[in-house]
Amino acid sequence: MDMRPIGVFDSGLGGLTAVRCIEELLPNENIIYFGDTGRVPYGTRGEDVIRKYTDEDCNFLESFDVKLIIAACGTVSSVAGDILHSRSVCAVDVVEPTARAAVSATRNKRIGIIGTAATVRSGSYAKVIEALMPEASVYAKECPMLVPLVENGWINEDDSIARLCVERYLETLKTMSIDTLILGCTHFPLLIPHIRAYLGEDVSLISAGGEAAMAAAEILKKSDSLTGASSLGNTAFYVSDKSQNFKNVCRIFLGRDPGDINVVDINRFTK
Amino acid sequence: MDMRPIGVFDSGLGGLTAVRCIEELLPNENIIYFGDTGRVPYGTRGEDVIRKYTDEDCNFLESFDVKLIIAACGTVSSVAGDILHSRSVCAVDVVEPTARAAVSATRNKRIGIIGTAATVRSGSYAKVIEALMPEASVYAKECPMLVPLVENGWINEDDSIARLCVERYLETLKTMSIDTLILGCTHFPLLIPHIRAYLGEDVSLISAGGEAAMAAAEILKKSDSLTGASSLGNTAFYVSDKSQNFKNVCRIFLGRDPGDINVVDINRFTK
Repeated sequence: MDMRPIGVFDSGLGGLTAVRCIEELLPNENIIYFGDTGRVPYGTRGEDVIRKYTDEDCNFLESFDVKLIIAACGTVSSVAGDILHSRSVCAVDVVEPTARAAVSATRNKRIGIIGTAATVRSGSYAKVIEALMPEASVYAKECPMLVPLVENGWINEDDSIARLCVERYLETLKTMSIDTLILGCTHFPLLIPHIRAYLGEDVSLISAGGEAAMAAAEILKKSDSLTGASSLGNTAFYVSDKSQNFKNVCRIFLGRDPGDINVVDINRFTK
Repeated sequence: MDMRPIGVFDSGLGGLTAVRCIEELLPNENIIYFGDTGRVPYGTRGEDVIRKYTDEDCNFLESFDVKLIIAACGTVSSVAGDILHSRSVCAVDVVEPTARAAVSATRNKRIGIIGTAATVRSGSYAKVIEALMPEASVYAKECPMLVPLVENGWINEDDSIARLCVERYLETLKTMSIDTLILGCTHFPLLIPHIRAYLGEDVSLISAGGEAAMAAAEILKKSDSLTGASSLGNTAFYVSDKSQNFKNVCRIFLGRDPGDINVVDINRFTK
C-alpha cells in the first residue's frame, strides 16, 4: 500500500482525458494534475524547448512526492521520454502502451498515427510498432491545427471547420486503408465523432491517454502500490495559466467540473 | 542622431509585419527583433502571464541598449501597455496609432475590431476610439483560431478552412455594416485576401503592425534620433524557440529570407 498521489501532466488540458480514465479505473487514488497552459502547445516547438519544459513539469510533480508520474502528452512522451524515465520515480508515457494496443487491435496490419508535428517527426510510435510487428505498415500524419481546435472548443459534431480539418489530415490515411488509428495526442479523443464519421465504424481508434492510464493502473496493482483506501480519492488541479475559457475546456475534457484550480509559476521548477 | 538599434518584439512571428514596414520606411536603421516563439500564443492566456512575459521581453531588448521599443503585438499592447510605457526607454504600442488611423478612415463611423481573446476582453482599441470619436459605433470580435491558422501557414486564397474561419468570425461585423476594420493582431494581415473577399473592397483594413511602425518612424524623425547613416541597416533576429517550419513562416511574414536566427532563453530575463 502506498498513500502517495499519482502525478499526471500534459502540455495543456488534453491530459485530463487520462485523469478521467484513472478516476474511473482507480477511484480510491489521489491525483495531482499539472497542465502547462501558460506554455501550451508543445507539439509545434523545437526539441530543446520541449525537453526543458518536461524537466520542469516533472520537478513540479516530484515536489508532491508522487509515487508515479504519467506523461499524458504524446509530444513529451515522444521527444523527452529519456528525461521522464531517467528519474528516480516510476514513470509511464503514452507511446509504448498505445503502440502495443494498436498492434493488438489491427487485423490488416495497416496502422495510422496522428499526433503533433514533434511527435510524428520523432517516429516514436512507429518504432515500437515495428519492433512488435515488423510486417506492419505504419502511416503517420502530423496534425498541428487539431490542438488549438480542441482547446478552442470547436469540436461539435456539426462543426464544419472541425470536419474539414479532420478530413484534410486523414485523407491520405484513409487512402492507405488503415484499420487502426492511434490518436497520439491526448487532445484528439474529443474529435472522435468527426474521425469516426470520416473513417467509418470499422477503424479501431486507440487513445493515448486511456492506454497510459491503463498501463499505470497495471503497474500500481502489480507492485501493490495502490492506496487500499475505501474512500474516494481526491484530484488536485494545477496549471501555469488560467485563461478565460479555461473552465469550459476543462469541463469538456474531464466530463465534470474540476472545482478549484491552482496556478503555479512553472519557471521556478528549473533545476 | 542616434546609432542605437530599434527593438521590436511580438509573442511570435506576427511582429515581423512591423519589421517589414520599418525596413521600408527607415532603411538605414538597425533593428533587433525578438519573437517569443517558445511561448506563443499570448492572446489566449491570462493577464498575469501576459504581463510577466512582456516584462521579460522588454528586459531582453533593453540588454541591447535599444533607443525605442515597438510592441508589435496587439495582446501585449492591450493588456500590458503600462509595463511597456513605464520603462525609461521610449516605447510604442499598436493600439493608439491603429485606433487613430481607424478614426481617420471611417466615413459611416462604424468600426470593427478583430484581435485575440485578451485584446478584445481588454477593450483597448474601443477606449481610444471612443475618446477620439464618441459618436462612433465599435464592434469587437475575438478570433483566437486565426493566430494558429496563420502560424500554420493555412493562408492561401483558395484555402477553404481559412475562408470558413474568417467568415465565422466576421459574420456579425459584416451585419453591422462596418466600413473600417482594425486588424488588431499582427498576424492578421496575412489573411487580408480572405477578409477582403468576405467584406468587400469598400471596407478599409487598418493593420496594427504597420501603424505602429509609422508611429515609431515619426517619433524618431521628430526627436532627431535616426542613425543618419547612408548605408543599409541590419536586422538581427532572436526567438525563444526554432520549430521545424519556423523559417517558412518567417519568410511569409517578412517577405524575404531572415538569414541567421538566434535562440535565446527568455526565462533568464526575469528581473
